[in-house]
Amino acid sequence: MVTSESPKDPAADQIRTVLDGRWADVRQHLRADPDFPVAVPALELGLDEHRARTLDACRALAGSDFVLGAVPPEQGGTGDLGGSITGLEMLGHGDLSVMIKAGVQFGLFGGAISNLGTARHHDAHLQDALQLDLPGAYAMTETGHGSDVQSLLTTATHDPETDEIVIHSPSPAARKDYIGGAARDARMAAVFAQLVVAGEDHGVHCVLVPIRDEEGRAMPGVTITDCGPKMGLRGVDNGRLMFDQVRVPRQNLLNRYGDIDDEGNYTSPIESKNRRFFTMLGTLVRGRITVGAGAGAAARSALAVAIEYGLHRTQFHYPDGEHEVVILDYRGHQRKLLPRLARSYALALAQNAIIARMHDIAVGAESSENAQRELEARAAGLKAVTTWHATDTIQACREACGGAGYMSANRFTDLKADTDVFATFEGDNTILLQLVAKGMLTNYQADFADLDTAGAILFGARQLSTSVIEHTIGGSLIQRLLSGAPGRDGDDALRDRGGQLALFEDRESHMTETLAMRLRRSGDDGSDSFRVFNDAQDHLLEAAHAHMDRVVLEAFVTALDDAAQGPGRDLLEKVCDLFVLSSVEENRAWYLEHGRLSAGQAKGVVARVNELCDELRPHASTLVDAFGIPDEWLTTEMMDDLAQF
Amino acid sequence: MVTSESPKDPAADQIRTVLDGRWADVRQHLRADPDFPVAVPALELGLDEHRARTLDACRALAGSDFVLGAVPPEQGGTGDLGGSITGLEMLGHGDLSVMIKAGVQFGLFGGAISNLGTARHHDAHLQDALQLDLPGAYAMTETGHGSDVQSLLTTATHDPETDEIVIHSPSPAARKDYIGGAARDARMAAVFAQLVVAGEDHGVHCVLVPIRDEEGRAMPGVTITDCGPKMGLRGVDNGRLMFDQVRVPRQNLLNRYGDIDDEGNYTSPIESKNRRFFTMLGTLVRGRITVGAGAGAAARSALAVAIEYGLHRTQFHYPDGEHEVVILDYRGHQRKLLPRLARSYALALAQNAIIARMHDIAVGAESSENAQRELEARAAGLKAVTTWHATDTIQACREACGGAGYMSANRFTDLKADTDVFATFEGDNTILLQLVAKGMLTNYQADFADLDTAGAILFGARQLSTSVIEHTIGGSLIQRLLSGAPGRDGDDALRDRGGQLALFEDRESHMTETLAMRLRRSGDDGSDSFRVFNDAQDHLLEAAHAHMDRVVLEAFVTALDDAAQGPGRDLLEKVCDLFVLSSVEENRAWYLEHGRLSAGQAKGVVARVNELCDELRPHASTLVDAFGIPDEWLTTEMMDDLAQF
Repeated sequence: MVTSESPKDPAADQIRTVLDGRWADVRQHLRADPDFPVAVPALELGLDEHRARTLDACRALAGSDFVLGAVPPEQGGTGDLGGSITGLEMLGHGDLSVMIKAGVQFGLFGGAISNLGTARHHDAHLQDALQLDLPGAYAMTETGHGSDVQSLLTTATHDPETDEIVIHSPSPAARKDYIGGAARDARMAAVFAQLVVAGEDHGVHCVLVPIRDEEGRAMPGVTITDCGPKMGLRGVDNGRLMFDQVRVPRQNLLNRYGDIDDEGNYTSPIESKNRRFFTMLGTLVRGRITVGAGAGAAARSALAVAIEYGLHRTQFHYPDGEHEVVILDYRGHQRKLLPRLARSYALALAQNAIIARMHDIAVGAESSENAQRELEARAAGLKAVTTWHATDTIQACREACGGAGYMSANRFTDLKADTDVFATFEGDNTILLQLVAKGMLTNYQADFADLDTAGAILFGARQLSTSVIEHTIGGSLIQRLLSGAPGRDGDDALRDRGGQLALFEDRESHMTETLAMRLRRSGDDGSDSFRVFNDAQDHLLEAAHAHMDRVVLEAFVTALDDAAQGPGRDLLEKVCDLFVLSSVEENRAWYLEHGRLSAGQAKGVVARVNELCDELRPHASTLVDAFGIPDEWLTTEMMDDLAQF
Repeated sequence: MVTSESPKDPAADQIRTVLDGRWADVRQHLRADPDFPVAVPALELGLDEHRARTLDACRALAGSDFVLGAVPPEQGGTGDLGGSITGLEMLGHGDLSVMIKAGVQFGLFGGAISNLGTARHHDAHLQDALQLDLPGAYAMTETGHGSDVQSLLTTATHDPETDEIVIHSPSPAARKDYIGGAARDARMAAVFAQLVVAGEDHGVHCVLVPIRDEEGRAMPGVTITDCGPKMGLRGVDNGRLMFDQVRVPRQNLLNRYGDIDDEGNYTSPIESKNRRFFTMLGTLVRGRITVGAGAGAAARSALAVAIEYGLHRTQFHYPDGEHEVVILDYRGHQRKLLPRLARSYALALAQNAIIARMHDIAVGAESSENAQRELEARAAGLKAVTTWHATDTIQACREACGGAGYMSANRFTDLKADTDVFATFEGDNTILLQLVAKGMLTNYQADFADLDTAGAILFGARQLSTSVIEHTIGGSLIQRLLSGAPGRDGDDALRDRGGQLALFEDRESHMTETLAMRLRRSGDDGSDSFRVFNDAQDHLLEAAHAHMDRVVLEAFVTALDDAAQGPGRDLLEKVCDLFVLSSVEENRAWYLEHGRLSAGQAKGVVARVNELCDELRPHASTLVDAFGIPDEWLTTEMMDDLAQF
């Protein structure tokens, strides 16, 4: 966003190139595409109108390149997974209902068919899903169990008499809840349920269940209700499903990881029930990366609006009595927006890195199981920290625009309400950080194998066989910088990129070691191991945060290293400094408590954050311009008002 | 909120008595009053329906005891100001549109007539305002100037020819904006404008201006537009007003502090233009206290819902594989909710104290100008910290209820959206904290008198003649506790109430002293003094926070001292400990940097917060029950769902 008067800073284009990353062409194409449904906010649309508009927008995307990208060529897609997620991220600058509805239809519903199904499902349904000829739903969460997917209550029981699978909701707690698409549009649901074959429970599997006929009437035995009004995402028709002994053919079981053969026997290529479960859940990784990407985009939209406003809005006079102060010149205002801007940059670059990695793993450029596990842990953590960052940043931006920020025409209403649930869906953030922590503890696993057996520790997380603490992105560069770091003195460390990396890594390592020591103290009986876990839960969550700070910084440093020399890169170096310094500032109690910074150094960190705000202030417009959000996607009434003053 | 099965803890009633405070009878009366318009949330009402419903609810309140309480007996009220604000606070547990609309009509519009007007206005309009026979608006904020009221652009020019006052909006920036009541209902507005008499500008005054006729048509020269959809408070009809040479009789000037005599001369009982301005603005104190009270009530509602949910919702199994864990048993969950619960208690008690003090000042039990100034600073600070606390707490509570928290039927939608603007209106929180800081610097005023002359420092704050650092509430008790404090050793200090008070006060004093030193460095020329102020702004805002922490703790300690001995008080002592320890935890970097806590002591603070969460967990239900929010005011779908499991 740059006003017409101000000539564009050439640094903006250089920075945009860095931010656009590997799928820059996808971004550029969508920016220029007049049909790309980055709809303006839906002020005061009725619930049904908004839902209809959202479905229409998804239809406009159906079958497009970036929808087909999610599916490999052998299933009829283009296999450009990275381009596909990047496209969804760009949708995040518009009406987020469209992004989420598209994510549910193409990513979750289509993704379940593609990833959990086999040829018979691909042939029968995949193109219909991608073309939106078959509106679908992804029915995992139940009213009684959300995070704890392993304990879902819905049953899918094989009936050898008729060779059908019987889907049933045994209790109110088994009701499928908050299911996008269920309330209005979906005709088929990918239903997660305990698969019972010959009386034996084989754990959670996914079955395709028709829930509406062609005329939109609920199928026999399926009770559909509407979740009704929500805080945001009004265009997404979330609903509830109850199944009363609903029969579908055996072939509707998505059978890639578990099947029932013609003799009615259960078979699976994965012996361990637990490992099978987590392999199926691994398909969630795309959704999590998409949500993180969308949250990041929404935060950048908010910052672009608030910083542009802060550069034009004045309040109170200078002592000269003549001129009024531009509000972004106030230190308090800079402190509200600029450290969050720096963090948004860091997260955007980390997002690019994870999209690239997911893409490479999907196309087989990197194919170890460890790589997949590491990706899952990283995706979980990045989703958690980015969605929380979005909530925090959008709030700060709203407040930074005062009363105008409260008016729906100025965007924050939808940005705030729509992204609020991002902290919860596709994995509750707290649970996701536990998954990260589990990965961090892998090096220590021999010490508390018994706890893993007990199954109580680190709920929802699967055992990794490699430590996520390794430098999977930018490895050699990071090692080089670390080995050139000036040692432990806080002053030097803070001035040197390698020193900054070492500071972040030191915090993470220390927290991980001490966490492992605490968890090791557990006795043998089960209840005690819960106590040990629970007593350390706050420590564990903070360690996961420390890990993600390090991962995000490494992505920033790697992107900087790849960037061409020039004023854009110089400016980005400063943004990286602000990200580092403001992170250290926020956690400086830890650095003080653990002797990593002296009191004087810690005060110096605060002073340096102020200086960096000062230094970046003249470039604020350049830095939001570099986000590359077309002006017409971010029109607000308040900027029109200011233009008249 | 207590479920029917669990017998009520007798401590709940004891604690409720403490929380109910001096106007317990008002609270008890309203809890039992079936006509009290604590409406359930207005799910999916159209904008106009919601506005109509809100107006109806305000009509139900019109002329009631607690509306009349805001006005002294000599003006036809009851003079029970404390009861009046307490009643508005209770409304805060319901649809906040009603609370705000009532606040605008009775508090701001009625309040302007009562406090800024004289007998002629009281006789002509006050009863009509209080009975809602004359729907009104309070037209202060303009599109171009919100926080900087002194720079408003609207003019009110005396025309000696016709003896009228001409109200005019000279530019788009002069448009009155976000004005509650303007869009739909108000027939008269209290318009703040620069009063020009005989060519001389006498600063901002307030004039009553009819804006609609009896049929609801805009008066000639008045252009009314609708602000349209907002993030929340949909029942409040915010609008915009432009005046094109609108003429009203000279008598419409609210002339208590500035008048035009029959000869067309300006007169005022207050010589200093600046002092006059701040005296008029002093009437804002009631609005600020009301907003703080409402924010506190909303945060308590959110906590009551989220804690009750956390006590019944389970997720993941214990290692025994049989039982599922109640989510409030997780330390991470306790940490989300219990420190915020403790702070809510502290703020509620501080709110009670300020309402009592305002009441006593209003009825003349305490009448010095210093007392009024101190009240204004305290009200500003309490409004800022309580509204931010509400935003933060409601968000945490929403997330603590997962997907259910996102459904509008579970209350957080409205709680979040409605309270969001509280950080902005009735004074932007950042500006309000600057006002607090100005009060804190009073003892140092001789050192930088020149800065005050320059007028650049501490925008929007008026000079106090007494330091707000004095113990105006609970003074002798606090002094006694402080003098019995065990000295500077962190361990002892944290265990002793006097020591805790000393720790808070020490932080505040040190920050204030160092702030004064920094501000003193200013040179003589105006622009430099801006730089000096601005460089210290982050320091200044943190000092104001430290001040408010201390003020709030003193209110808690005073209320504890007044409480009857018993299990309720014992529990409250622990809540107070959690408030103190979690505040110290949050600011422990400062305590470490300034040698107030050793690294070991700082780690001990974190551990103690965990212990206190553990100790309070069994009493969580009692502690939200003690809020005294009737069950039927907080009905949610998700609790009904859980009851069926």
